Amino acid sequence: MTVVDLIERKRDGGRLTPGEVSWLIRHFTDGTVTDYQMSAMIMAVFLNGLDDTELAAWVDAMLHSGEVLDLSAIPLPKVDKHSTGGVGDKVSIPLAPMVTACGVAVPMMSGRGLGHTGGTLDKLESIPGFTSRLDPQTFTRVLSETGLVMGGQSETLVPADRKLYALRDATGTVPSIPLIASSIMSKKLAEDLDGLVLDVKVGRGAFMKDPDDAKHLAETLIGIGRAYELPVVALLTQMSQPLGREVGNANEIEESIAVLTGQGPDDLVQITLALGSEMLILAGVAQDYDDAERRLHQAVTSGAALDILASVVEAQGGDPRVVKDPALLPKAEHVEEFRATRPGYVTRCDALDIGVAAMRLGGGRERKEDLIDPAVGITVLAKEGDHVDEGQPLARIAWNDEGRLAAAKTVLKRAWHLAAIPATPNPLILGEVRS
Amino acid sequence: MTVVDLIERKRDGGRLTPGEVSWLIRHFTDGTVTDYQMSAMIMAVFLNGLDDTELAAWVDAMLHSGEVLDLSAIPLPKVDKHSTGGVGDKVSIPLAPMVTACGVAVPMMSGRGLGHTGGTLDKLESIPGFTSRLDPQTFTRVLSETGLVMGGQSETLVPADRKLYALRDATGTVPSIPLIASSIMSKKLAEDLDGLVLDVKVGRGAFMKDPDDAKHLAETLIGIGRAYELPVVALLTQMSQPLGREVGNANEIEESIAVLTGQGPDDLVQITLALGSEMLILAGVAQDYDDAERRLHQAVTSGAALDILASVVEAQGGDPRVVKDPALLPKAEHVEEFRATRPGYVTRCDALDIGVAAMRLGGGRERKEDLIDPAVGITVLAKEGDHVDEGQPLARIAWNDEGRLAAAKTVLKRAWHLAAIPATPNPLILGEVRS
Repeated sequence: MTVVDLIERKRDGGRLTPGEVSWLIRHFTDGTVTDYQMSAMIMAVFLNGLDDTELAAWVDAMLHSGEVLDLSAIPLPKVDKHSTGGVGDKVSIPLAPMVTACGVAVPMMSGRGLGHTGGTLDKLESIPGFTSRLDPQTFTRVLSETGLVMGGQSETLVPADRKLYALRDATGTVPSIPLIASSIMSKKLAEDLDGLVLDVKVGRGAFMKDPDDAKHLAETLIGIGRAYELPVVALLTQMSQPLGREVGNANEIEESIAVLTGQGPDDLVQITLALGSEMLILAGVAQDYDDAERRLHQAVTSGAALDILASVVEAQGGDPRVVKDPALLPKAEHVEEFRATRPGYVTRCDALDIGVAAMRLGGGRERKEDLIDPAVGITVLAKEGDHVDEGQPLARIAWNDEGRLAAAKTVLKRAWHLAAIPATPNPLILGEVRS
Repeated sequence: MTVVDLIERKRDGGRLTPGEVSWLIRHFTDGTVTDYQMSAMIMAVFLNGLDDTELAAWVDAMLHSGEVLDLSAIPLPKVDKHSTGGVGDKVSIPLAPMVTACGVAVPMMSGRGLGHTGGTLDKLESIPGFTSRLDPQTFTRVLSETGLVMGGQSETLVPADRKLYALRDATGTVPSIPLIASSIMSKKLAEDLDGLVLDVKVGRGAFMKDPDDAKHLAETLIGIGRAYELPVVALLTQMSQPLGREVGNANEIEESIAVLTGQGPDDLVQITLALGSEMLILAGVAQDYDDAERRLHQAVTSGAALDILASVVEAQGGDPRVVKDPALLPKAEHVEEFRATRPGYVTRCDALDIGVAAMRLGGGRERKEDLIDPAVGITVLAKEGDHVDEGQPLARIAWNDEGRLAAAKTVLKRAWHLAAIPATPNPLILGEVRS
C-alpha cells in the first residue's frame, strides 16, 4: 500500500478500508505522508466524500493520534457545548458558568477566530492576564477545582487535527461535512464527556449557508457520537445577523457578563437558555425544559454563575475583578457612529459583512498568524425588523487605526438593507436533531 | 487574489481567468504558492477539468516559466516526435536518425522511465559513456553539427513542468488530460519546432486505456499546437502488448540498431515508418507517404541513419562502436527462459504486466530516485496470435539479482493468456488526428 494508491482510489470515487484510513492518518501525523500528498487526498475527499465506514475510521484515527483525557476522577457529569462558529457568538462565555452553577462539570475546549468568525479563546484573552494555554494536568486541575475550565486544544490532544486543520485552511478544503465533522468530534471525544450539545449555525454568517447542509452536518456529528455512545443533541440556529449586539473581543466579554447579571440582549439570552437546558437534561440534573430554565435563571439571579466565571478567570491567570467592573477591559481610543443614509426597516443586518468588518478593524484574523486588537469592535444598534430614521446610527465602531477603520466601513456599507416594509423575521432556532 | 480563492473556485467547478492562471503558475514556480496548495489545486483540476481558455493560459504560463530555445540559426526544418509512453517503445532511437538522414533536424528532448513505462534517456544511457544532460548551448551545438540531438529536459527549460510533474507523480494526479497536454506541449513549444508528430499510445500498457480518451488527448494536444501555429499530427497506436520484442534498456538499444540495419521486428518497423513519414511530410521534405517511405528505406539501406546514430552517440560522450558491435552494451550475468505451462494461441501478451516485470527486474523505476540496471530485460518470444506448445519459451529473462528475478516472474505469470482458438489481432495503428 502506498499513499498514491489511496489518493487515486479516493480520486476515482472508491472507498478506503478502516485499516487504510488509520494508516493514512498515522503517517500524516508522523510526517511520512507529506503535506502535499494529504492536501491532494483531502481535496479528493472534499469532492468525493467519505462514506459512514470511512468517516468512522477517520474519526477514530484522528482521536487516537494523540492523548485522550481521563476525567473519571471528577464525580460530576461532564457536558460540553460546541458551536460551528458565527458572528457575535459569545454564547460559551455566559453559558458554561450557568451550567456549572447547576452542578455540571464543563471541560470546555475552544478555538480561535479565523476569517469573519470570532473565537471564544480570543474573546477570553481580552481579559487582562487570562491564558487559555493549559497543559492537560492544569486543564484537569482547574476543572476539578471550579467545575469549569475554558482552554485551547493542547498540543498533545488530537495532533492530527491541528495539522490537518492548518492544511485545510490553506488549501480551500474547510467546508466539507466529513472533514468538519471528524475535526469536531475527534476533539470532543478526546474530552471524555458524558454528553455534548452542538450549536450548528445556519445562514450567511455561518459555514453552512443552507439549512439542509446544516442538518446533514448535525446528523453526521450525532452519528459519530452514537458510535462512541456519546449522547449528542444539536440545535440549528440562525446566523443571518450577528448574535447579540457586540462583535469583537473585549466588548463581547462585556456583553457575556451582562447575560450573567440579567441584562443580556434577548436573542443571546434565548440561545444561551436553549443550549443550557439541553446540557442540563443530558447531564441528568434537570427533568425537563421548565426545570432546566428555572435552574439556569436561578444560577443568574443568585450570582452563582458570575462567581464561577470570576473563579475560572482567576484560576486561568486573569483579573477576576473584570466580571464586576468591565471598565477594566481594554478600550479602543476612538468611537465613531455608522449612520443610516436613508430611513427604513432593516431587512438585512448581514452577519458575514459585519464579521468581515470586525476582522478588518483588527478584531479578527485574516490569516492564522495575524495579531488581534482586543479593544476594537462593532456594536450593532439596528437589527432585522428595527426601523431607523435617516442619520440614525446603525452601529458604533470602536477603533484604533484609521486605515483599518476605513477598510471596515467599506464593508459595513453593504451590511444593512433598508426597506419601506418590514420583512418577516427569521426564527432564532430553526430546528433540533437528536441521537 | 489569494491562492485559496483560486483553489476554491476550481474546487466548485468555476473558471480561472488567464491572469489568474499565469499568477498561479508563476508563484508556484517561485515557491510563493506552496506544494501543498498546488497539489490541492491540481486534484481539483483533475476532477473538474480546465476549459480551453484556462488550458491555453496554463500552457502559456508553463512555457514562459523558463528559457525558450532559439534554433533559428539551424537552416533545416525542425521536427520532433513525442510518445505518451509505452512498453518496449524504443521508436525514437531508430526513428530520429532515419528522419535526420532525410534532411530534417530533430531536436529531441526525451524523458526517463517511471513505473511500467521505459524512458528513451535511460535506454540511451545504457550505451557506455552516453550522457543526456546537455545545457542549452551544447544541445544546440550537437544539433547543428549532427542534425540530431537526444537530450533530457534542461534545468532552465519549463521549470514549472519539472516541479509540477514531481508533484503530480506523488499525488495521484498524473492521468489528467489537461495536465498531460500542458506538460507535453509546454516542453515541445519551448523547442522552437516547425512540426510535431505525436504517438498517443492506447491500451493496457499506456496511460490512456481507452481509445476515446486517447483521441480526446490527441485533439487537446493539437488544439494547443494550433494556438501557437505549430502543425501537429497524432497517430493513435496500440499498446496492449509490448512494441517489438525487447523490453529493458541495453536490449532495446540493440533492437533499435536492428531496425537501422534492416532487421527490426515488423511492428516496430511499421510504427517507425508511419511516424517518420508524418515527420518528413510535416517538414516538407517528402511529398506523400510513398515518397516518405522510400526516403526512410533509403536512409536505412544506405547506412546513413546508422552513421548518424553513431555520430550523435559520439557527440554526446558515448562509445560509437556500439552501433556496429552491440556486444559492447552491458550484458546481464544470467539468462533464464520463461515457459508456457500449457499449449495454446496467445490471446493476450500484456504490456502492463511485462512492463511491471521489467521494472521489478531492475530495468525501470518504481520511484524517481531508484537506480536502473541497464543490462537486465525481457525478450518477448510469443506475441498475440502466436501458437506455443507446452514448455515452449514465452520470454527470455536477462537478470542479475535472484530476488528481483522472482519478483519479475510473479508478475510474468499473469502476462500471457493462452486459448484454443486465436483471437482477432488488434490493429497496430488505431487512427490519426490532424490539425
